[in-house]
Amino acid sequence: MTETSETTRYTVAVIGGTGPQGKGLGYRFARHGHDIVLGSRAAEKAEVVATEVNDRLADVAGAGTARGLANADAVAAADVVLLAVPYDGHDELVASLPLAGKTVISCVNPLAFDKRGAHGKVINNGEGSAAESAAELQPEATVVGAFHNVAAPALWSEDEFLDEDVIVVGDSVEGKQVAIDLAASVTGRPGVDGGKLRLARVLEPFTAVLISINRKYKTHSGIRVTGLDAH
Amino acid sequence: MTETSETTRYTVAVIGGTGPQGKGLGYRFARHGHDIVLGSRAAEKAEVVATEVNDRLADVAGAGTARGLANADAVAAADVVLLAVPYDGHDELVASLPLAGKTVISCVNPLAFDKRGAHGKVINNGEGSAAESAAELQPEATVVGAFHNVAAPALWSEDEFLDEDVIVVGDSVEGKQVAIDLAASVTGRPGVDGGKLRLARVLEPFTAVLISINRKYKTHSGIRVTGLDAH
Repeated sequence: MTETSETTRYTVAVIGGTGPQGKGLGYRFARHGHDIVLGSRAAEKAEVVATEVNDRLADVAGAGTARGLANADAVAAADVVLLAVPYDGHDELVASLPLAGKTVISCVNPLAFDKRGAHGKVINNGEGSAAESAAELQPEATVVGAFHNVAAPALWSEDEFLDEDVIVVGDSVEGKQVAIDLAASVTGRPGVDGGKLRLARVLEPFTAVLISINRKYKTHSGIRVTGLDAH
Repeated sequence: MTETSETTRYTVAVIGGTGPQGKGLGYRFARHGHDIVLGSRAAEKAEVVATEVNDRLADVAGAGTARGLANADAVAAADVVLLAVPYDGHDELVASLPLAGKTVISCVNPLAFDKRGAHGKVINNGEGSAAESAAELQPEATVVGAFHNVAAPALWSEDEFLDEDVIVVGDSVEGKQVAIDLAASVTGRPGVDGGKLRLARVLEPFTAVLISINRKYKTHSGIRVTGLDAH
């Protein structure tokens, strides 16, 4: 992480910004100086949550600002877009947004649940992921995957940072750097470059493992990458 | 982990016991008091590696013993079998072994490599894994998945324990407990119950993410599960 990237202040549109993951990540970004534009189907709903975030950050020195807009307007107001939407309806929504030219970070987890617990939905016969679908639907966007495995309740907590790592995958070095920078708002250290976009096929369903662990051990688990002391 | 399971001394047959993963895990198990039977196609080759392990453990108080046998004989000599074989030829080998009634731990990673790096092989159109294949081929064995993500060079090092967690998946609580116990030989703490066997679909290709991280950061990375301080 260079000094330049450490001090970059981003404006991030959070699509799905009123859901727990989007609201929680947006709060973390804004808490550490980035500006966020929460997007929702209804601008009014996004404005309510933006006010909630701003109220929470009123006493935090150096915090960024939150505002709420309808999804497409939120995208238009930012260069970086976080997709934090449910997988149901994901493809239609992503296709409908003006994402050309944007850096798009997908934290979408295509999961299914049955009596045996959580597991990954099979996409494109095992050769796809939500992040890859977004990249195919929006060929002029730079799509990366990140923030799949952070638990929403921990994001909305008062803890300064979460004790875990954010793994970032993508086919664009510049795109990954944005997510690597933003990860520091969540974990206190840069995100970990985990390789190419197709490895989102692993990061997305890994959340099912964490959900299983959470159920068994009554906790909010995360993952930390060991062996990286020097980075 | 109960006091009973903490003190259980297992005899573990390691199929693929002359490869780096099998040899390294066998060494760890024996170093912490379990007996190992390294299996190979040729018994002589397994004996050579067993001698190497025994020599290394000569000064370790409480260490178990290592011996080498042909694969099928190694299986016959143990109640617990670690499958540490390459994915190429995996199904044929597993089908050929006398695994009925055994607890079988698969650490097999079906990976492919191309110019974009490592990635997971697609098994059964995304609805399979090496561990599930083993369970289907050996319906009278108790198959669990574990030890997928530990790096072979770290296993064969002099470090007392590896700074990472072993995640265990399986459909049998008793079968998982064996791997959870054995994990303590590697990491210094019990393995983490990660849910049902089908989640091996995630743990196996996760190794591709770690390989990507290793290449980028010039390290031997592992994963640690956070949020489990109490367990």
